[in-house]
Amino acid sequence: MLVKMNSATPATASSAAFLLIGNELLSGKVAEANLQPLAQLLRRRGIELQRVVAVADQIDIIAQELAALSAAHTWVFTSGGVGPTHDDVTIEGVAKAFGVATVLAPSLVTMLRTHYAGRLNDGHLRMAKIPESADLLVSGDITWPTVRMRNVWVLPGIPEVFRMKLAVVAAHLPAHAEYISRAVYINTEESALVAWIDETVRSFPSVEIGSYPKWFDTTYKTKITFDGRDAALLDAALAAFVSGLPVGCEHRSE
Amino acid sequence: MLVKMNSATPATASSAAFLLIGNELLSGKVAEANLQPLAQLLRRRGIELQRVVAVADQIDIIAQELAALSAAHTWVFTSGGVGPTHDDVTIEGVAKAFGVATVLAPSLVTMLRTHYAGRLNDGHLRMAKIPESADLLVSGDITWPTVRMRNVWVLPGIPEVFRMKLAVVAAHLPAHAEYISRAVYINTEESALVAWIDETVRSFPSVEIGSYPKWFDTTYKTKITFDGRDAALLDAALAAFVSGLPVGCEHRSE
Repeated sequence: MLVKMNSATPATASSAAFLLIGNELLSGKVAEANLQPLAQLLRRRGIELQRVVAVADQIDIIAQELAALSAAHTWVFTSGGVGPTHDDVTIEGVAKAFGVATVLAPSLVTMLRTHYAGRLNDGHLRMAKIPESADLLVSGDITWPTVRMRNVWVLPGIPEVFRMKLAVVAAHLPAHAEYISRAVYINTEESALVAWIDETVRSFPSVEIGSYPKWFDTTYKTKITFDGRDAALLDAALAAFVSGLPVGCEHRSE
Repeated sequence: MLVKMNSATPATASSAAFLLIGNELLSGKVAEANLQPLAQLLRRRGIELQRVVAVADQIDIIAQELAALSAAHTWVFTSGGVGPTHDDVTIEGVAKAFGVATVLAPSLVTMLRTHYAGRLNDGHLRMAKIPESADLLVSGDITWPTVRMRNVWVLPGIPEVFRMKLAVVAAHLPAHAEYISRAVYINTEESALVAWIDETVRSFPSVEIGSYPKWFDTTYKTKITFDGRDAALLDAALAAFVSGLPVGCEHRSE
């Protein structure tokens, strides 16, 4: 279930979507690795990631997805398709989503000329192409700017570079009340706990309660999580849940 | 870009979509691990995975996604949300997508009664709930059936169990002409190869050509892939590409 808002939730709560772009993900050649670090950053910032979509390197499909995601969410992040080759079409897709042209950003052209000097070619110059009126954002010691078109952040697909760019995102994203998470690990099968979990869910409607069985772990069988923005409420829900566990049911909290 | 069909492509080529269900993926608590094994199975079967979506544990959102994905693709696979607790709502979502009720499957109830005997409770019985008229499929030594509702395969979220269930999917999925992949690894930066890659793409319009820079590897700098269903055509494209590489450009193929 999605987090239900309680009275402590700021009215400015914002949502996010993530668009993964790349044939290599859909063909199974490459393992996806960017969702979790982005999801964790957004969670720390109190921004609710509501939707993830992965599509192929096709301009029209990317544009259609982005137009829909951008309208429905406060922030959208893309990953992949930003290199210099024919299959790198994310910038074109972003531009098309917003009905603008692509242009060479003078500041990026200057950086490329400085770096490549006499070796600068058309392939290099494609790296300077951005959607018209896009923002170029920098932070810390990462000198190559990150493109943001309205509420869409354009990030690279290579996981090591993606994570570096998240530092730039973090420097520019507004912070909301952070999500907090509590967990209790229980040495009892999930199916034996269902009735008591259900009752706890009914007693604490504004706490997001999750139940995760562990099949291949000898240290516990079921993990129950309590998520929200109100620490006292989470602690109360966890305490109430633990106090009603069956006699002899081993558990530990964190 | 998506694979362009050439004359050797069977007319029965089919497509797929994957719906990941679970708050734990969107909150960053758990790393996604099911996409790559499913993508690789589909690739071997010649089925084109076109779209991946991840959403929260909410019946209405799941139902809406599944209705759209089921109509647009030959096959849809879901992962997650099939346990006995309140946050396991995938079966309800599938039923709602197709406008049917959920029912207790007599064969599953019998299996649960046999396994749990006197300990059987309502939580256990929730595991026997399926969308009305769904298929229950078995294969090999996995005795617990896999639910398939029309073209939607309902799979568990736990990666170890998901991979076990893929054996059941493999036993029941029709096979199409397999996708084949060739690759060449080059010790030259991608940006220096752009013009020649572009020309190769134009010369072989029915081969899917991908270019992947490697930033953190000392063994190569750029990987060029050639994908399709016609091995001779892929070999020709790879040979033409390699023959035109700049003098002194080190490479190896696979």
